Amino acid sequence: MKGWIHMRKYAAEFIGTFALVLFGTGAVVIAGSGDTPNSALGIGLAFGLTVTVMAYAVGGISGGHFNPAVTLGMVIIKRIESKDAIFYIIAQFLGSLVASAVLGVFINGLGLANDSYGQTDFGGSVGLAIFTEILTTCLFVFVILMVTSKKYGVGNFAPFAIGVTLSLLIVLALNITGASLNPARSFGPAIFAGGSALTHYWVYLVSPLIGAAMAAFLSKYMGSEEA
Amino acid sequence: MKGWIHMRKYAAEFIGTFALVLFGTGAVVIAGSGDTPNSALGIGLAFGLTVTVMAYAVGGISGGHFNPAVTLGMVIIKRIESKDAIFYIIAQFLGSLVASAVLGVFINGLGLANDSYGQTDFGGSVGLAIFTEILTTCLFVFVILMVTSKKYGVGNFAPFAIGVTLSLLIVLALNITGASLNPARSFGPAIFAGGSALTHYWVYLVSPLIGAAMAAFLSKYMGSEEA
Amino acid sequence: MKGWIHMRKYAAEFIGTFALVLFGTGAVVIAGSGDTPNSALGIGLAFGLTVTVMAYAVGGISGGHFNPAVTLGMVIIKRIESKDAIFYIIAQFLGSLVASAVLGVFINGLGLANDSYGQTDFGGSVGLAIFTEILTTCLFVFVILMVTSKKYGVGNFAPFAIGVTLSLLIVLALNITGASLNPARSFGPAIFAGGSALTHYWVYLVSPLIGAAMAAFLSKYMGSEEA
Amino acid sequence: MKGWIHMRKYAAEFIGTFALVLFGTGAVVIAGSGDTPNSALGIGLAFGLTVTVMAYAVGGISGGHFNPAVTLGMVIIKRIESKDAIFYIIAQFLGSLVASAVLGVFINGLGLANDSYGQTDFGGSVGLAIFTEILTTCLFVFVILMVTSKKYGVGNFAPFAIGVTLSLLIVLALNITGASLNPARSFGPAIFAGGSALTHYWVYLVSPLIGAAMAAFLSKYMGSEEA
Repeated sequence: MKGWIHMRKYAAEFIGTFALVLFGTGAVVIAGSGDTPNSALGIGLAFGLTVTVMAYAVGGISGGHFNPAVTLGMVIIKRIESKDAIFYIIAQFLGSLVASAVLGVFINGLGLANDSYGQTDFGGSVGLAIFTEILTTCLFVFVILMVTSKKYGVGNFAPFAIGVTLSLLIVLALNITGASLNPARSFGPAIFAGGSALTHYWVYLVSPLIGAAMAAFLSKYMGSEEA
Repeated sequence: MKGWIHMRKYAAEFIGTFALVLFGTGAVVIAGSGDTPNSALGIGLAFGLTVTVMAYAVGGISGGHFNPAVTLGMVIIKRIESKDAIFYIIAQFLGSLVASAVLGVFINGLGLANDSYGQTDFGGSVGLAIFTEILTTCLFVFVILMVTSKKYGVGNFAPFAIGVTLSLLIVLALNITGASLNPARSFGPAIFAGGSALTHYWVYLVSPLIGAAMAAFLSKYMGSEEA
Repeated sequence: MKGWIHMRKYAAEFIGTFALVLFGTGAVVIAGSGDTPNSALGIGLAFGLTVTVMAYAVGGISGGHFNPAVTLGMVIIKRIESKDAIFYIIAQFLGSLVASAVLGVFINGLGLANDSYGQTDFGGSVGLAIFTEILTTCLFVFVILMVTSKKYGVGNFAPFAIGVTLSLLIVLALNITGASLNPARSFGPAIFAGGSALTHYWVYLVSPLIGAAMAAFLSKYMGSEEA
Repeated sequence: MKGWIHMRKYAAEFIGTFALVLFGTGAVVIAGSGDTPNSALGIGLAFGLTVTVMAYAVGGISGGHFNPAVTLGMVIIKRIESKDAIFYIIAQFLGSLVASAVLGVFINGLGLANDSYGQTDFGGSVGLAIFTEILTTCLFVFVILMVTSKKYGVGNFAPFAIGVTLSLLIVLALNITGASLNPARSFGPAIFAGGSALTHYWVYLVSPLIGAAMAAFLSKYMGSEEA
């Protein structure tokens, strides 16, 4: 029975991350394929509000991370166990991969240029990209840890606050790094798009994890783990 | 007295579906009739948030389906009876038909081209269209069944989560199939617009029902019907 | 003391209607004065969300009508007394008038064309305009009466649902009649703009009141006034 | 221990104001740096919703002012002590300064024109600017004091109502004064941008404080401080 319950949690993380990557990169690639490219606000809302609705749908099962950086933050402040976290992260990466595969079906079916999978990349210096991803992920995970904390939690307003925070951070950083804040979100698109999105992938793997670790300590300092 | 209560439920489904089709297709046809065509985000929000507000207004009466695919999902997991479901679906189709008739009054009164009723259609392969409508409806109905479940329900946040999910799915699929996810939503516009919207209608009838059935089993597996 | 409390209610209606007309018509005239005219969605949200936030701010005092049609609906189903309603409506008209006067200060200060006060008007037939204003106001007031009812009320979600409903109806009807749904909203701008906005004003006075009366009966039929 | 708790409050004000200025001015300078300048709605939402999410994240610690004008209003109606308010305001100014410094890193890294830090300024008369900032801040702080009051408070809906109100006021006043409503929000960008943003800064220091004081008296008259 216990294994069953665990499987549900991993399935929840798979579904949520699948939706996050499919809806988000789909808003970039498909919704922006006509005359009007999608605005930063439109793209930010697509990613952010997907986190919101998926957290409402399956957050009661897994906590609704959909992001290895969030899972790392939760491990550091001991809200979940390391052993569980590994399966969370595997499920998140798989969800991203399948989402990009499905996006590939749409791209081929619609005859779109098949070098754009909504991958994250940067044109400026690698230092700027790392700084941006660390800072934005730190703010994102800080908000998550606070609004879901025992002491300062806001109940069912948390998914709303979390999703809108992601939207705002994407509006800020979209033109700098593509605004990943999430190693899983960047993974699937990088695998399918290849090129510099793949060779730069390490930036999107390492930076959000650093930012999330910083957020965990900041949130603890602010009292999030107190009774 | 009991018949009276039932009539209210069907009236609620009629009003909600009427509003969904009128506000949604109106956003396409009337709001997009000026220089600036409405964005995918604008159209997605028009449909999605109409479900949100109508579920707040009459969801307490009928549950706020406004969609035969949703009603089918509810029947499969036994939240409503088949006999009731038939009248729900009739009310939904009638609501859609009347909405398109009212849109026709606006179209004629404004002198707009009367071949556009905001109907759903696709230019690519029928296989891609069926795949898209099944996948998006499955995700949509899955979210609905989870956020309104006893175990994982989110109370009055449910109409918000449901409407935003529909908005996101429409942003994703608008350029592929017009993003129906709802046999009733496609019915009225297809009847009035005719042409390929009508000959393709079967895709919008069958695919959402398949997606909703899949969602019912997935949601049950995830524990939505447990105490 | 009792008079004092009443004065607060009328002040609440004055402030809310003042904000509704100032923010809404300001979004049309000032925000849309640059290169990018404001979209139907932007204008709809400006009016609708102002009702939302003002209902949160002063709804606890007056109920947050900000609209004579809403007040009429409330009188018909006996949620407020006729005597009180008259002062509500006077406060609403005054709020609209002062808002347009303030907008005039902005218009003159910015050197904008001073024939646009965000007034409502129509280019098509008077019959279409009356039909549109009756239908949209009926749907608007119906949602209000349901989400604030004892039986189906949604508590603090009501201002959100009400404001979003207004936004959606404005997106639908903006290109037909300017989407007033509110005799007070059209009053101030018509007085300052003059011309056909003033000679057509009777349409925006009579139609919303008819729509609101219809909504009151519909909502009562749906059980909103039952225990 | 008590000092520790106080430090957390000031840290909360620093973080919230830092995010407000970074996300808001970033939406102007970075998100608007491509072909499509950001719309008034997009900019308004960036500032407003940042207040919303930061109030959810750290409002439980400091109350979530992020604005010296709000803090002044709270002092006048005696919800916080003057001594505490001074440190709140210092933290807010520091947060704004650091946010503009970080924006400077992005501006230089992206090679953008480095005279735009999203500073507030006005082209019309100083009288119009003062009138605009007083009026908009008065309405903003009035809504804040009402929705967070004991008598009329709306609980966890307050951050949502407050943020949306700010968004609406920015849509209204963006083309008049840049819509500051906040001496801290204008401070950092003015220091970095210099020029008329700096010589005009006194308008953005004095006017919001006057507006907030007026709001405190209005809210008290409306009963916000009653039991």
